[in-house]
Amino acid sequence: MQNKPIGVFDSGVGGLTCVKELRKLLPNEDIIYFGDTGRVPYGNRSNQTINKYARQDADFLISKNVKAIIAACGTVSSVATSLGDSLNVFYTGVLKPTAKAAVKATKNGKIAVIGTTATIKSGSYEREIMSIHPEINIITQDCPLFVPLVENGFVDNNNQITRLTVEHYLKNIKLSGADTLILGCTHYPIIKHIIRDYMGDNVTLIDSGSATAEYCAGYLSDNNMLNNKESAGTAEFYVSDTTEGFSMLAGLFLNEKVSNNVYHIDIGALAAKK
Amino acid sequence: MQNKPIGVFDSGVGGLTCVKELRKLLPNEDIIYFGDTGRVPYGNRSNQTINKYARQDADFLISKNVKAIIAACGTVSSVATSLGDSLNVFYTGVLKPTAKAAVKATKNGKIAVIGTTATIKSGSYEREIMSIHPEINIITQDCPLFVPLVENGFVDNNNQITRLTVEHYLKNIKLSGADTLILGCTHYPIIKHIIRDYMGDNVTLIDSGSATAEYCAGYLSDNNMLNNKESAGTAEFYVSDTTEGFSMLAGLFLNEKVSNNVYHIDIGALAAKK
Repeated sequence: MQNKPIGVFDSGVGGLTCVKELRKLLPNEDIIYFGDTGRVPYGNRSNQTINKYARQDADFLISKNVKAIIAACGTVSSVATSLGDSLNVFYTGVLKPTAKAAVKATKNGKIAVIGTTATIKSGSYEREIMSIHPEINIITQDCPLFVPLVENGFVDNNNQITRLTVEHYLKNIKLSGADTLILGCTHYPIIKHIIRDYMGDNVTLIDSGSATAEYCAGYLSDNNMLNNKESAGTAEFYVSDTTEGFSMLAGLFLNEKVSNNVYHIDIGALAAKK
Repeated sequence: MQNKPIGVFDSGVGGLTCVKELRKLLPNEDIIYFGDTGRVPYGNRSNQTINKYARQDADFLISKNVKAIIAACGTVSSVATSLGDSLNVFYTGVLKPTAKAAVKATKNGKIAVIGTTATIKSGSYEREIMSIHPEINIITQDCPLFVPLVENGFVDNNNQITRLTVEHYLKNIKLSGADTLILGCTHYPIIKHIIRDYMGDNVTLIDSGSATAEYCAGYLSDNNMLNNKESAGTAEFYVSDTTEGFSMLAGLFLNEKVSNNVYHIDIGALAAKK
């Protein structure tokens, strides 16, 4: 059982920020990634549709015989809250690990959270943080344009449109005096430099993909579920749009070449056949 | 046959700019609209996925027994070019009507085209315009951030982010001296005022949704296919995400209340069952 792969899924490429950290922490693990690039983005869709898509994504990974599933997607973690209940493998979203890391990091007890509209509307981070530490002061803001900006490559430090959009969304958070900012969507680390520039060096940025990879590595280790082989782990990437666009973006996210291990699946048809 | 409804589809809400014009021109016609809000946007996806989705969308309208199908979507019209061939009803995309209107409008023989990445990459407008008038000078530009800006309500005339994005994409077009600009995506008329402000009053803006509605009205009239009833036409709206978000946006697009005539369908499951 411990030599089965770890399954990771996201609405698109954002979850690769989690895969990158996983491969650093657990270089011997095999990883199966599914990015729902044919239906990205999730963050503006209804809860009903997000739940349906998340279930289909997890079912696909189950069919690949994984030992663990990570929903490396802030939107799925926040909205499809009961997804893990019916899966017979270890499951985690980004919520719990990220909230824990933020509570540990804050010194003044003020935490800010940014994410997609669905994530922020759900109130998931407030509930999670309050359950760890009820006295924390929390401010939240949805940033629906960040995912399109990242996906269209508006990520250069001097990009005035992205800088203005960051200012537009983060103005109130900066005024609030929060010393810790949760990047509650796995796309956001790609514009971390612009966010840091605006927020200043005194604010700690918590990357939900990294925090979740660390949590998962700890869990697998504590429960004797780590792969015991000594060779380097493999990675397979599955996407619901074609493979070309993904290979290029994935290369940038992971700093490694992915092209001969990327495969297309029809997630809608697979789900309907179940 | 002539009393059957007209079917219109789009990736999301953009096609409603065409429906609005259709209802003005042909108030007695019944209209069935499908907006693929569960999989929007199409414009950054691969040709293979766009073709698959377009086929599924048209098949759904065929199942509703329509007399005509309009793909009120620049991306579908440009990429799924053989979609009409296998449909046994009158079919049009936005390409032909819009190109004709632009060639008619230009005085200096310079036409600019903006659209989604898939539309511009396809070279569809160049081919269409050249087939009407081979001497026309054409400049094109994809504007992948316009759809997210419109869908997230960044449409106010004073919105600095949208104004800066318009300038970013249209700078070279303005320099080119084109006197006619095709809005090759049915979302773009929603930020027409900002585009007009930047381009100036001497440039004619061609709205692809309106041009296509006019073309369709002319075709149905010429071929004795107009509905002969005297009462006002009905409208039904189908969407692949939930109905709530659509009802609100549709109200803004159409200036009429839509809520008791909006229905949800699972387009992926319907297609798989075929």
